[in-house]
Amino acid sequence: MAKEKVTFDFDKKGDFSEWYSEIIKRAELGDLRYNIKGFIVFQPWSVLAMEKTYDFLEETLQLKGHKPYWYPVVIPEKNFLMEKNHVKGFAPEVFWVTETGAGEKLEEKMALRPTSETAFYQMFSIWIRSYKDLPFKTYQRAQVFRYETKATRPFIRSREFYWIETHNAFDSKENAFKQAEEDMQTTKEILLDKLCIPFIFFERPEWDKFPGAETTFAADTLMPDGKVLQLPSTHIISQNFTKAFEVKFVDEKGKENYCWTTCYGPAVSRIFAAIISIHGDNKGLIFPFSVAPLQAVIIPIYNEKNKEKVLKESKKIQEELRKAKIRTEIDLTDKTMGEKFYYWEMKGVPFRIELGEKEIKEKKATVFLRHEGKKTKEKISGIEKFILSEGTKQMDYLKKKAVKEFEEKIVEADSIEKVKKAVEEGKIVKTGFCSVSMQGNDCAEKIEKEMNASIRGTKFIKEKPAGNCIVCKKKAESVVYIGKSY
Amino acid sequence: MAKEKVTFDFDKKGDFSEWYSEIIKRAELGDLRYNIKGFIVFQPWSVLAMEKTYDFLEETLQLKGHKPYWYPVVIPEKNFLMEKNHVKGFAPEVFWVTETGAGEKLEEKMALRPTSETAFYQMFSIWIRSYKDLPFKTYQRAQVFRYETKATRPFIRSREFYWIETHNAFDSKENAFKQAEEDMQTTKEILLDKLCIPFIFFERPEWDKFPGAETTFAADTLMPDGKVLQLPSTHIISQNFTKAFEVKFVDEKGKENYCWTTCYGPAVSRIFAAIISIHGDNKGLIFPFSVAPLQAVIIPIYNEKNKEKVLKESKKIQEELRKAKIRTEIDLTDKTMGEKFYYWEMKGVPFRIELGEKEIKEKKATVFLRHEGKKTKEKISGIEKFILSEGTKQMDYLKKKAVKEFEEKIVEADSIEKVKKAVEEGKIVKTGFCSVSMQGNDCAEKIEKEMNASIRGTKFIKEKPAGNCIVCKKKAESVVYIGKSY
Repeated sequence: MAKEKVTFDFDKKGDFSEWYSEIIKRAELGDLRYNIKGFIVFQPWSVLAMEKTYDFLEETLQLKGHKPYWYPVVIPEKNFLMEKNHVKGFAPEVFWVTETGAGEKLEEKMALRPTSETAFYQMFSIWIRSYKDLPFKTYQRAQVFRYETKATRPFIRSREFYWIETHNAFDSKENAFKQAEEDMQTTKEILLDKLCIPFIFFERPEWDKFPGAETTFAADTLMPDGKVLQLPSTHIISQNFTKAFEVKFVDEKGKENYCWTTCYGPAVSRIFAAIISIHGDNKGLIFPFSVAPLQAVIIPIYNEKNKEKVLKESKKIQEELRKAKIRTEIDLTDKTMGEKFYYWEMKGVPFRIELGEKEIKEKKATVFLRHEGKKTKEKISGIEKFILSEGTKQMDYLKKKAVKEFEEKIVEADSIEKVKKAVEEGKIVKTGFCSVSMQGNDCAEKIEKEMNASIRGTKFIKEKPAGNCIVCKKKAESVVYIGKSY
Repeated sequence: MAKEKVTFDFDKKGDFSEWYSEIIKRAELGDLRYNIKGFIVFQPWSVLAMEKTYDFLEETLQLKGHKPYWYPVVIPEKNFLMEKNHVKGFAPEVFWVTETGAGEKLEEKMALRPTSETAFYQMFSIWIRSYKDLPFKTYQRAQVFRYETKATRPFIRSREFYWIETHNAFDSKENAFKQAEEDMQTTKEILLDKLCIPFIFFERPEWDKFPGAETTFAADTLMPDGKVLQLPSTHIISQNFTKAFEVKFVDEKGKENYCWTTCYGPAVSRIFAAIISIHGDNKGLIFPFSVAPLQAVIIPIYNEKNKEKVLKESKKIQEELRKAKIRTEIDLTDKTMGEKFYYWEMKGVPFRIELGEKEIKEKKATVFLRHEGKKTKEKISGIEKFILSEGTKQMDYLKKKAVKEFEEKIVEADSIEKVKKAVEEGKIVKTGFCSVSMQGNDCAEKIEKEMNASIRGTKFIKEKPAGNCIVCKKKAESVVYIGKSY
């Protein structure tokens, strides 16, 4: 094999697509060479970060009263056919299990779940009886499967992806909406506060709602190539579902009614795509301290004479860091020092601790801060406290930087030409629009076709429109956001 | 609906089958009413305990150098057909994905993984090049799918189950065997030390090995109905697999060779079956402190007058317990006190803290220890320390009790009649046998047919046989263990 280049050096802003493909390969995040198209093997360096993301999400959801379930990965065809909009939306994308063993046909074929409403609601109809059972708040961590016909991209769009889905039932539409608000708050607590990813929640237009939903709110962020990436979404499901599945409750007055339901779906593998793309730079990954598979790496610098002493001191530091629950390793490979530096920078480890004869003498280690590219000397004794406090600062730094870049790319425009230009420049454009519901609206169709862009929706807290619709010039009735999407 | 009986009262030893079905229903561990035969919905009370089990296993495996992966749930038919013994063993049990959307046939059908050797090895052949890459130790947490034709039982045998599978490659057979020994040690650290479940590792006879394995070691425990339950197993895989998949490495001298591989498969859902069956009693579940979904429940005892005071004090205790990372809730339902007591006893919560006017005055709470059925008074201040230390003692208690019961049921017998009688009494019987390999042995076949029992194998560290084979009366060459299985 040809020797691999030591440095990672790709222009993230200039050619994001190349940067993205290369970092996935070089940092060993996912391997695309698995024998089935659209399915990838997730490797340890991404799995560890995604497991952390799962931990944050599950902890928060449990605190907010959601209980964990594990549902079967297969859904019988009859469940799947119960709600007509849902079938229409998902049917083309379903993988079907039809046989067993040497080709015996199943009596009824089973869908690999593309989403699990039709599995959860079947059980809700058994479990929910009275207003006392409500709210009924559940979730599961699971993979879902969609036979995507669009081009797949690892972590962004693949035929199997990793998510959490919450499914919840309420005694009123009002309480369902409150849940959607709570979901948006949860998204902020995790994505923005823990993962440093900025986003805006939009109420999606009619044609872009979850199949079967009455209202869809979805978080959008911007990728370095100026394309909008959809992150978690939360949906107020119409009562059509609970009517189809007979999910009913008896209220305090003894009256029977159908439940109102919601679902929320943070896709952990797609959130990971945002983490690496938004924070990374031309030298590779930069993981927020919270989810870094390794938070600090120790590089011992030694020769034959002082090897023992340096390694002993390195181990002592590792022990102190681990006691403080900091994920740490010592790099003991036979690479050169330079190779080690480049390697861990590329892998996005937040802190590198260099330790040699000089450092031991001074009782101070050299610490390299990946996010700022700066070196500093810190007392070896108590270095774990330094790393923890710098870890918090690092997340602050990444968050501020990402928010600033994101906000700079949200611009206003009042003509179709200006919108077009801004969208081409990779911006999300805010503009006036002639309709609120947008259903069957010619102007919307014109925008999406002419610009090769999509209407992301209106903000959750509605903005007051000024001026006219950029297409038909009628008085604007809503403020919409437009962007390029994957 | 008829009012549910307040007390749980089933004779675990007298009719284990009834006890098992009832506790799964009443404690809401799993719901069998999902629309597909052999698949169940796992409910929060079991999921929380199984997630804890996953945590213990993953933490330990990572410490021992296994890296986490997420492989696709589907395996292409061509991978699956590569190793002939493996195909023969698993083919009858495979679920096949053959279609997408409205019935479009896939070019190649895909198996829902029944186990993942043929997925992992495809990638090993790409990733492993040199002795420097070895040992290559991996794992994934995953569900696997088997079209069981035997009767299914929740948690014990179902068509979808939850496990961890490790897949590992080595430079020598010797190192592969060392891995198997490490796996047995891991099993002890988790099953015995954390979950209080006793077991013996047996080397399985030829006909009971994992399809494709050269040697299989499997842990057996005993269920209350006298049936042997197989727990984690570890396998030395023959080089047939690495030859089929071209998993090769270049050794230090530059010579190419095929890797030796092993796999280890602790089934978390089946381990859960052992936890509830071995520790439970006629009043319901008893969770080891380590995996209890709730470790302590607080029951406030109040009337209209002192309600506020009692609830305030209850919340203070809850806070202290939660700070100490003890999983705790206050029961605020409108059940009677008696109902609450019975309910949480049935649910297996290790400690119940009763708190009323009297307790507040005395500054001591009443604590009920589920495993001993005893009450004690403990100072409210510092009660979290009491719970933590009693938690450790509770696990000791459960472990000793389970080990004692297990060991009493392992007996020796030197004639076919005595073996038969002991097996009928639900024991594991140790006896002499005429062969070591047992392959194609008539005596083995006779035992399995005549007794409706199975030969579990020989111990990992071989025992010296005395006497004769119980069937053919030839000189015994090995010591085997026989028991009834599911």
